[in-house]
Amino acid sequence: MEIRKIRCKICNFLKEGLILEHYNLKVCLNCFPDFFRKRVDETIKKFKMFTKLDKILIALSGGKDSMSLAKSLKDLGYSVKALHINMEIKDLSNETSLIVKNFCEKENLELKIVNLNDYFTTNLEELSKIAKKPICSVCGSIRRYIMNREAFSRVIVTGHTINDEVSFLLKNLIFWNDDLLCRINPILAEREGLSRKAKPLCLISEEETRSFCEILGIKYVDTPCPYKSKVYDVFKGITLKLNERFPGSLIGFYKGYLKRIRNFYPEKQDNSVLQKCKNCGYLTTAQVCSICRLKEKLLE
Amino acid sequence: MEIRKIRCKICNFLKEGLILEHYNLKVCLNCFPDFFRKRVDETIKKFKMFTKLDKILIALSGGKDSMSLAKSLKDLGYSVKALHINMEIKDLSNETSLIVKNFCEKENLELKIVNLNDYFTTNLEELSKIAKKPICSVCGSIRRYIMNREAFSRVIVTGHTINDEVSFLLKNLIFWNDDLLCRINPILAEREGLSRKAKPLCLISEEETRSFCEILGIKYVDTPCPYKSKVYDVFKGITLKLNERFPGSLIGFYKGYLKRIRNFYPEKQDNSVLQKCKNCGYLTTAQVCSICRLKEKLLE
Repeated sequence: MEIRKIRCKICNFLKEGLILEHYNLKVCLNCFPDFFRKRVDETIKKFKMFTKLDKILIALSGGKDSMSLAKSLKDLGYSVKALHINMEIKDLSNETSLIVKNFCEKENLELKIVNLNDYFTTNLEELSKIAKKPICSVCGSIRRYIMNREAFSRVIVTGHTINDEVSFLLKNLIFWNDDLLCRINPILAEREGLSRKAKPLCLISEEETRSFCEILGIKYVDTPCPYKSKVYDVFKGITLKLNERFPGSLIGFYKGYLKRIRNFYPEKQDNSVLQKCKNCGYLTTAQVCSICRLKEKLLE
Repeated sequence: MEIRKIRCKICNFLKEGLILEHYNLKVCLNCFPDFFRKRVDETIKKFKMFTKLDKILIALSGGKDSMSLAKSLKDLGYSVKALHINMEIKDLSNETSLIVKNFCEKENLELKIVNLNDYFTTNLEELSKIAKKPICSVCGSIRRYIMNREAFSRVIVTGHTINDEVSFLLKNLIFWNDDLLCRINPILAEREGLSRKAKPLCLISEEETRSFCEILGIKYVDTPCPYKSKVYDVFKGITLKLNERFPGSLIGFYKGYLKRIRNFYPEKQDNSVLQKCKNCGYLTTAQVCSICRLKEKLLE
């Protein structure tokens, strides 16, 4: 977002600040971080995501979204611990891990780093070949698995923004993926062996997380993952375009969908029959979960 | 669409042709027009739009979509008459009317031309100011009104393509316009004083209507209307991008929506209470229709 001379709606001073078109609001650089934190807190309360009594595990990738969320949760007084998963992607992962480590030290935030090779003896490219799935999809499965394994009774919190949520919603509408459409929700209830999951940035845009990090001097990784799905890129592009042309449209679209979801899908709930994986206990639709099956294939 | 050397799936010759990615089909330039006409006819039958016993009135704007539709309906043996509405937009309308006239003469197609000043004593810009509505919206209302007045008992047929239908659907999803979403349909039943309306190109893309016209040497107007809504342009752009990146996605999305519409909006139908305008008899929600109100304001 461009920095301009504005009259701040919060402190009423004429200062350098941002024009948040989707809120129809001008905020100075000084007031913005607090405004951001309040938005995060309001979202947590609006969707009853968790309280200050809950223990939180934030998935900290090192990007602007999860970094701004971690900082906000800490500042707001939530009981938060960070989990960083190093997927051993060359030229990217080690630099990222260092940025995350420095951030957590500075912020006095408890951090656990897990490496892909704590779970697997080979890299993502090999695992993708063995699983016969795109790297991005295998990586996602593994990260979700590790998060659940490392969460214990903590609520898992991720930095998905309104841009992510709308990209996902749009993609699944265009391709009518009803099984996913009926489950869209910024909070996922816990189930035996799976932690509760929440997305406190679900109403906040990536422009805002970027501004938050930049104003507070939080270093973050901006290099896109070399394995990022191109399909996802198309929908992210559409989302950016919509946000630019119709400020506020993303939030309206997403909230409107959440309001209609039970009318659109009255019977469909997350009622897939899951059972415990007989190897590791992770909830799965099969007898053995996809991660254990991948491990088995690796040994063949 | 790019013309390439291909093996035609229809005649099996190695010839210059088109790759229709959304059908996963290669067709030579010779076979394409017939393939196009068949698609039009299949769509008419699939949605039970009309039969060869019905009298059709095609709204012929002079663009590639309505021109390719008029030619196809004529060639397929439907009983079709054309209506061209000259909205008196400078530098555009007279040139367009001439192209339409020449086309209809060549194709031996009965044509009626109506001018804006047959109905109003002033131009669109003035009417927009008086109605306090964007030009594009006033123009649409007037054209719909004229079409209905000129249709008598004919089925009104328009050249809306899959790009138009998906742009409209997407726009109304993003802004959650339920009153319009619940009525999306390529065929609108007739009501007292309003003709049945059908869109036989609803499963055909603009790339195809362009190719059809170019292969058959049909001259059409390609200049965009100077008053075209910019909002609409954004959604048209998104639609083009989706079609390019995911061939077939537009048709899948649209058909999928039609399949789900009664689940999504079970009660909502087109049940707005309409009555006859006490001046002209046109169906309206008020006592006097918007067009007669506009005429009254013009006299004030």
